[in-house]
Amino acid sequence: MSSAALNFFNVTKNLTYAILGTGALGGFYGAKLQQAGLEVHFLVRSDYESVRRNGLFVESVDGDFRLNRVNAYCDVRNMPACDVAIVALKTTQNHLLPDILLPILKENSTVLVLQNGLGIEEEVAAIIDRYKVSGHKIGETKIIGGLCFLCSNKVGDGHIRHLAYGKINLGEHKNNSQHGGIADEMQIIANDFESAGIPIELSSDLLLARWKKLVWNIPYNGLSVVLDATTEELMTNPNSLELVKELMHEVLRGAKSVECDIPLEFIETMLEHTRNMHPYRTSMKIDYDEKRPLELTAIFSNALQAAFSRGVNLPKIRCLYQQLQFLDLRNRTNAVK
Amino acid sequence: MSSAALNFFNVTKNLTYAILGTGALGGFYGAKLQQAGLEVHFLVRSDYESVRRNGLFVESVDGDFRLNRVNAYCDVRNMPACDVAIVALKTTQNHLLPDILLPILKENSTVLVLQNGLGIEEEVAAIIDRYKVSGHKIGETKIIGGLCFLCSNKVGDGHIRHLAYGKINLGEHKNNSQHGGIADEMQIIANDFESAGIPIELSSDLLLARWKKLVWNIPYNGLSVVLDATTEELMTNPNSLELVKELMHEVLRGAKSVECDIPLEFIETMLEHTRNMHPYRTSMKIDYDEKRPLELTAIFSNALQAAFSRGVNLPKIRCLYQQLQFLDLRNRTNAVK
Repeated sequence: MSSAALNFFNVTKNLTYAILGTGALGGFYGAKLQQAGLEVHFLVRSDYESVRRNGLFVESVDGDFRLNRVNAYCDVRNMPACDVAIVALKTTQNHLLPDILLPILKENSTVLVLQNGLGIEEEVAAIIDRYKVSGHKIGETKIIGGLCFLCSNKVGDGHIRHLAYGKINLGEHKNNSQHGGIADEMQIIANDFESAGIPIELSSDLLLARWKKLVWNIPYNGLSVVLDATTEELMTNPNSLELVKELMHEVLRGAKSVECDIPLEFIETMLEHTRNMHPYRTSMKIDYDEKRPLELTAIFSNALQAAFSRGVNLPKIRCLYQQLQFLDLRNRTNAVK
Repeated sequence: MSSAALNFFNVTKNLTYAILGTGALGGFYGAKLQQAGLEVHFLVRSDYESVRRNGLFVESVDGDFRLNRVNAYCDVRNMPACDVAIVALKTTQNHLLPDILLPILKENSTVLVLQNGLGIEEEVAAIIDRYKVSGHKIGETKIIGGLCFLCSNKVGDGHIRHLAYGKINLGEHKNNSQHGGIADEMQIIANDFESAGIPIELSSDLLLARWKKLVWNIPYNGLSVVLDATTEELMTNPNSLELVKELMHEVLRGAKSVECDIPLEFIETMLEHTRNMHPYRTSMKIDYDEKRPLELTAIFSNALQAAFSRGVNLPKIRCLYQQLQFLDLRNRTNAVK
């Protein structure tokens, strides 16, 4: 074990957590961690006043609970630096990261990125590097990626509805400028989440895990918006089911182009998994219905570009991406069509 | 000139026309022919009573006109055999063709197919061949394909609104079982249409002309339904415009696979043409909005299959086709979603 990791273990008190983005995802995981006795600080935007006064209410398939008091902040400058900064924004808000992430980092902080898509840890690493180059001393910041298998919605101010699942797949971001240590922090964070009742799976290959998640996200998120359909409708119509499969095959081809081998059987596993789900409105469909921007860069564009840079075209994914860009722009420019 | 063609020319009276399907297209062209003094017989379905009593009203950019009396039939068995049978149904109704086409054919009739898509003349030829094999004597039936560049809607009983264009591109169906003669009939029919104010272009290669029409129909008909968009919206959003272009390139690849060479510049011509059009709801979008079945077999499936049979995949067109199949089925099964 490296000396940095030993230092980390020798800290007698528990890790402190910052939740950057107290929405359906960040609010749920943060509340679970606080409920398990950990110190959690929440950056809250639209419903700050309500959360500060009334805390958070989690209506969950695993049992409802209420936190009457939470550490809520509307301004990151009032937040304490934390051991673990959880990035729980939508990726469409990542332009805010320099402003909200850097102020809460301290010596040996860990950034845990709980977002979908590709290229996000690289983005966080670049933000931190630029910060260091500009003369700030924030020590060694480790970056961990987490893929959340969670169905939850924010249904009101400080009110989160947890519908199903919750598992997080954690993986270490491999970056030349980092040396060792992450595996140990990852285990401690995993223990904290598990103590809060969140199942954790550790991945030795974060990039592979991210591409595997895209096997689900690209067809279902994309088609749910374009065809205005639930997962169940997509699975029961033979034509959309065929298209789902063909899109999944293209994701596998994209993954293979960057040396991530996903076995063919994984497609059948995802289909079977989706057949057994409750009819589900995907997160992208919810964003669309709420007229929020869609996470197209992280989920679609970065995947297409990664494959394209290796000379591989993914034409059906590209077709879907272009349709989504059209719909996304119209959705946010015309309040009434 | 062949003797069959001479016979054709020697007929002293004008050709008689049967319009099979008195909708936005058949009603328009049939009314124009009758207005020019030709004998026209209309097979009318839903608005038969109204058309029989009140005739047809054509509200047209080229000048409105009313035909107070037309030869209207609700049952093809009451129609006289005609020299030219104009197939003006939607291709989704082509299962009716054996019943409505064969009874009105006579010695040396010509079938003029005014429909979109591929494989339709072959379908008509097969129907006629089966009829002959079963012992019926109907002489030599010639088949001509016609591609209509027409914007018109049926807006009420016997009421057609002609918005723009109207040109027909005529081409001979090449079939081994036919020998000569068509070129002459095509010229006579072309003269009749031109006397009625319909611009006619004669194509020496019908298959090429049909693929060229698909360069427009596949992207605009398809995307107008999937994205709920007018042609203008598709042209002004950069992402949908890019997708339109990429779909057009795939049509060119499909055409090339069956030895139809469409020059690359044709794409820019189609784009420019569409930019200069009025914002237009495509015929497929109108069908969708009216909850009618979409012409997916003729326009999409037959094109995909023709290319596939030559080993060429058209993945974006296939993606669009699968989406349209999903939407078409849902549109007609759920009256209210």
